[in-house]
Amino acid sequence: MIRACLFDVFGTVVDWHTSVSRDLAEFAGARGVTDVDWVEFAEEWRKLYNPAMEEVRSGRREWTVLDVLHREGLVTLLDRYGLDRFDEGEIDVMNRAWHRLDPWPDAVPGLVRLKARYVVAPCSNGNVALIVNMAKRAGLPWDVVLGAEPARAYKPEPEAYLASCRMLGLAPGEVVMVAAHNGDLVAAHGCGLQTAFVARPTERDLVADPVVDFSAGDFEDLATKLGC
Amino acid sequence: MIRACLFDVFGTVVDWHTSVSRDLAEFAGARGVTDVDWVEFAEEWRKLYNPAMEEVRSGRREWTVLDVLHREGLVTLLDRYGLDRFDEGEIDVMNRAWHRLDPWPDAVPGLVRLKARYVVAPCSNGNVALIVNMAKRAGLPWDVVLGAEPARAYKPEPEAYLASCRMLGLAPGEVVMVAAHNGDLVAAHGCGLQTAFVARPTERDLVADPVVDFSAGDFEDLATKLGC
Repeated sequence: MIRACLFDVFGTVVDWHTSVSRDLAEFAGARGVTDVDWVEFAEEWRKLYNPAMEEVRSGRREWTVLDVLHREGLVTLLDRYGLDRFDEGEIDVMNRAWHRLDPWPDAVPGLVRLKARYVVAPCSNGNVALIVNMAKRAGLPWDVVLGAEPARAYKPEPEAYLASCRMLGLAPGEVVMVAAHNGDLVAAHGCGLQTAFVARPTERDLVADPVVDFSAGDFEDLATKLGC
Repeated sequence: MIRACLFDVFGTVVDWHTSVSRDLAEFAGARGVTDVDWVEFAEEWRKLYNPAMEEVRSGRREWTVLDVLHREGLVTLLDRYGLDRFDEGEIDVMNRAWHRLDPWPDAVPGLVRLKARYVVAPCSNGNVALIVNMAKRAGLPWDVVLGAEPARAYKPEPEAYLASCRMLGLAPGEVVMVAAHNGDLVAAHGCGLQTAFVARPTERDLVADPVVDFSAGDFEDLATKLGC
């Protein structure tokens, strides 16, 4: 019996590729910086994401929220691209591009249907402020914000999934982890959660791993498949 | 500039007196137990709440969520009242009376108005599962669930307020703590938060402490006073 759905956010609920590159291009363009490939810049920024979290996962670095890791990566990249005209306040604004990601068109209507029957919550590596600001802007109707910061563990560490279930007072088998990435789903499956794959065109994985319980074309399809 | 409103829940958002006593009376009555004053029982249960949290605040006991503290208090009281006919599963159901509290009539419409302008979040000593289940049942439109469990600190410890602000990425001065209890508001004020008193007829305090910034008759009045 399913009681709650947990959602990966970056790539699964929101389109970070388009949103980050467009946000940076607009911000920089308004300041006269027009000769940067911001799509490539966004991809390079995202590449720094996992190594930065790995420092925390490994215990080499104490718990640090994603906004801080993102900002360090941004400073690294601005330096690599030779972009030295932004001040600290401007870098803060650029860093919060991750708070302003647009949802896939099916995300809000699908979540509204799922919320009528289940607890719906992000289980993201994004920190609470990032997820809350994104949700207010995009109209994502979360019941509660779970994930890395409340758990103080980055996915795919088991504690990220298990603390989220525990905080809901639910057994892992009563919870479905929803993601567009098989790595996330295989880790959740290993913790005893049910799993649902949602295909997203710009993400890496095109079909569900064999361990996955549900596979959907988008969030509306997922709502139908989960009986909403 | 206010960016978020944090809310005490028990007594401020929901009427625990009426809800707990009615819930227990119905549950016990359906099992033939009718000779108990459940209003008095609910008051006695609540009296065990602060001493139980004080064990955690003092460090004598490791972090323990309120559902566990509530259940221990319930078992103590059932024994004191000589009520030995409930099994473990029934005691679990009775304990979750705190997940089924009814909101004051102005709470939902007031929160809907406040949510349009501010982040609205509980900052309660209730654990996440309790607050989420209550919100689903009562239609409380929280943006995020903050408070004791995410902070791992019980109010009025400063960390309960400060961790909530930090998780929102806000300075304490950008956040208003809303409560019907002056003790809660004085503690929040001491942490640098703004404060708002809402008068609730069944709670102890009838007028706001002099340090309080806003004073309202109910949540609709609060929304008006905060410009919504």
